[in-house]
Amino acid sequence: MADLSSTSRRLRDLGVRRATLIVDRDRAEANIARYAARAAAAGIVLRPHFKTHQSAGVAQWFRKAGITRAAVSSIGMARYFADHGWDDLTLAIPANPLEVEDYDTLAGRVALGLTIDSHATCDALEERLQEAVSLWIEVDTGGGRTGIAWDDHAALTSLALRLRAGSGRSAQEPRHRFAGLLTHGGQSYGARDRLEAAAIFATVRRRLQAAAAALGDAGLSDDSRRGTDATGSSILLSAGDTPGFASSADWSGLDEARPGNFVFHDLMQLSLGTCTQDDLACAVACPVIGVYPERHEAAVHAGAVHLSKEHLSGTDGRAIFGRLIGLSADGFTSLLPGWDVASLSQEHGLIAARTQQARHGLAAVKPGDLVLVAPVHACLTCEQFTSYLTLDGEIISRYRR
Amino acid sequence: MADLSSTSRRLRDLGVRRATLIVDRDRAEANIARYAARAAAAGIVLRPHFKTHQSAGVAQWFRKAGITRAAVSSIGMARYFADHGWDDLTLAIPANPLEVEDYDTLAGRVALGLTIDSHATCDALEERLQEAVSLWIEVDTGGGRTGIAWDDHAALTSLALRLRAGSGRSAQEPRHRFAGLLTHGGQSYGARDRLEAAAIFATVRRRLQAAAAALGDAGLSDDSRRGTDATGSSILLSAGDTPGFASSADWSGLDEARPGNFVFHDLMQLSLGTCTQDDLACAVACPVIGVYPERHEAAVHAGAVHLSKEHLSGTDGRAIFGRLIGLSADGFTSLLPGWDVASLSQEHGLIAARTQQARHGLAAVKPGDLVLVAPVHACLTCEQFTSYLTLDGEIISRYRR
Repeated sequence: MADLSSTSRRLRDLGVRRATLIVDRDRAEANIARYAARAAAAGIVLRPHFKTHQSAGVAQWFRKAGITRAAVSSIGMARYFADHGWDDLTLAIPANPLEVEDYDTLAGRVALGLTIDSHATCDALEERLQEAVSLWIEVDTGGGRTGIAWDDHAALTSLALRLRAGSGRSAQEPRHRFAGLLTHGGQSYGARDRLEAAAIFATVRRRLQAAAAALGDAGLSDDSRRGTDATGSSILLSAGDTPGFASSADWSGLDEARPGNFVFHDLMQLSLGTCTQDDLACAVACPVIGVYPERHEAAVHAGAVHLSKEHLSGTDGRAIFGRLIGLSADGFTSLLPGWDVASLSQEHGLIAARTQQARHGLAAVKPGDLVLVAPVHACLTCEQFTSYLTLDGEIISRYRR
Repeated sequence: MADLSSTSRRLRDLGVRRATLIVDRDRAEANIARYAARAAAAGIVLRPHFKTHQSAGVAQWFRKAGITRAAVSSIGMARYFADHGWDDLTLAIPANPLEVEDYDTLAGRVALGLTIDSHATCDALEERLQEAVSLWIEVDTGGGRTGIAWDDHAALTSLALRLRAGSGRSAQEPRHRFAGLLTHGGQSYGARDRLEAAAIFATVRRRLQAAAAALGDAGLSDDSRRGTDATGSSILLSAGDTPGFASSADWSGLDEARPGNFVFHDLMQLSLGTCTQDDLACAVACPVIGVYPERHEAAVHAGAVHLSKEHLSGTDGRAIFGRLIGLSADGFTSLLPGWDVASLSQEHGLIAARTQQARHGLAAVKPGDLVLVAPVHACLTCEQFTSYLTLDGEIISRYRR
């Protein structure tokens, strides 16, 4: 079992001197394998969202697990993965009319999916997109972020009919293909626990199916479940969000799963009950630069620019910006009880010893030690680094905007 | 007067297509000139903290105003500015014993100040630092982040005596110089208004002086105000934080001022009353990717990875992640009333129209428009970008970790 001092020693042995993003590759690969198996069992395409890791090196671990398609959230990220051999990418955020030329260039190289939720954006694409793309209509199934409301049948049907028409342009090569309906049930992040996340996920799937059924009623589909359209090609249903897929064994009614966070998980998933401590696969090694026993705290040179300001609320309402985790010869261990990251400024973090045992441990902490912080939100924390360091000492680079 | 549509047009004319960090150079230079003049009037050295802008190009604007010294918050940032001709730099965060070799290398090139608050860190520096540096003792004047408590006279005196001894090493070239006492009154960010920030600043200065007086009582100084030490060399007093310096005309009792944020200011400073809308000098241009009139919102492709998750609480307790600001031919305008950034996920932001007038304006917004978001915390927002775009179309690069 790792403790503060053995964790510090191992991190120093890895050569860490300053805030460094560490990945436990075994755990990440286990997370990937588990989701790949679950998708296969459900008969669903797993198109993981690569915004979490944004790394061609980490993407190779997905490829080893048989994954060949991915979702991304910017054209720059799409180009990066295209440059690294990924040839089936969906930009799972509403298309930006100002970037149509960028989409067009990329669509000449890879199978590109774009997302839209308005005629205005469709206008921009039809006007200036020369290459063939797959178009997804985003459906808001309760997340309230982007997409056409799932029960706004008029708007859904109107846009879908237009896409169908566009995809069947007489003699011409079709410039786009209506791929289906895409949603992100992000409201699952507001769930109190895994059961509530599962209930939200069931609602998301039901609403997405209802939206597809509405297209069927409008003659766009002869299959009210998943909407195989009148020409015989399927209208696929694609959903995202790790808490949804993590919380429920039932992935039925979907054709494609786009979770992203599951590769690393984080404290947010842990608090939702949608992962275990053994699934936490990334953390930030942070050098201790000050120790303040009288207030049961130590300062680390790792702040909001390393961990992000994302936080959880502790049981007493205190903000928690991370927790300490151990490192043993076998990799990451459980969380070290009684420790959390209590505050962050730009480059400073304060870790607080909350229990008697932790306070006892603080007595041995000194500047130059290293602690390992499990992040609240892995996606935002990883974004702050240019590379990962594996426990084997390998440096794996990331896409940078 | 700029409105949504004229602002969008001007941003498009600047060539903006995706989330882009914009700086109003005239405003930034006016902010710099104002602080340079105030420091000169107070007879205090202005050593601005460059962590806010982290740009050699922006640093040139300081040099034009006669500034030749700076504070930084990481060794990488220090190296970057050293590479761009800055030869007097203070690392205003407790030194990291794991980076002593890096400090040593840099101290061979520039006048380097380091900050310590413990004997343990002093051990590491004495053991391995070959080059001469200036050492500051950090004093906690109520911020509760790093530093020796201002009223812990025993700890302060013990460390100061050690530094004095170290700086007077018999025949040897002194390896370090005890520069003085340094504090960051970050508790000013918790002030309700400018008056409270001024009161906090007065307390910070009084406590720093009291700490210096304690050193005087221990024979380290013959001047209880600022602590000129027994050898006749001054023990300087250095304080940071923009709200403190912004809130009060009285900078007396200090030798050095290290505010950083003032170059750009932001909504946090505005809410503290420590800047005006006319001082806001940086903002993020964001493309609109969705419009949702039924919930009075529009989505932008700009999220936590562009703006950071830093937020303010609105009068009704709602989180505010930014506000819209206008752009005219003369530069940034006032904030556009009735608009705020209501939520952020990784790459998405939702802007909300809160008033009837703003909701009326929303009717004309469409995907492909651009809005300009004034950030809550400029330091964290700028950190998310590799460069600034000026209103003249100049691209100014930034240090990247």
